[in-house]
Amino acid sequence: MFVILTYDVNRKMVSKVMKTCRKYLFHVQNSVFEGTITEAKLKRLKGELENKIDKTADRICVYEFDSTKYSRKVQLGSVEEISNIID
Amino acid sequence: MFVILTYDVNRKMVSKVMKTCRKYLFHVQNSVFEGTITEAKLKRLKGELENKIDKTADRICVYEFDSTKYSRKVQLGSVEEISNIID
Repeated sequence: MFVILTYDVNRKMVSKVMKTCRKYLFHVQNSVFEGTITEAKLKRLKGELENKIDKTADRICVYEFDSTKYSRKVQLGSVEEISNIID
Repeated sequence: MFVILTYDVNRKMVSKVMKTCRKYLFHVQNSVFEGTITEAKLKRLKGELENKIDKTADRICVYEFDSTKYSRKVQLGSVEEISNIID
């Protein structure tokens, strides 16, 4: 499945959250990861993040897409790498 | 269509970018907006943002979904409002 993960966490937690996310997804922008991931790995990722974050203050959104048909990614401004259309 | 918009812009530009995005989408997290939007309004939003940002340094990603069937949003940690499943 395709996943977009965004995080809004305490400064102290940023490096830990990023390190965990990098094991499974690609860092595309400040606070944003994305990538194709299996259901099992996604479950593991969520578990690792839940163990790390402060549940009263930190926040992580995971948008999960079983299918990415009829979807696309458009980038405005500075584009470091070639923009990749989802799927 | 459903849109997830993420921005990574210079501090000085943040308030301008947020003000523009707020006219069309909902602010769900630091650096992240989302919402349902018409194609015409999305075009207008992109145009307004392109006029504001520094194209050599600022970066905005727009994930566009014509259909959000088989997709969901999962939140970890602090959830200010009731988590809404896409669609």
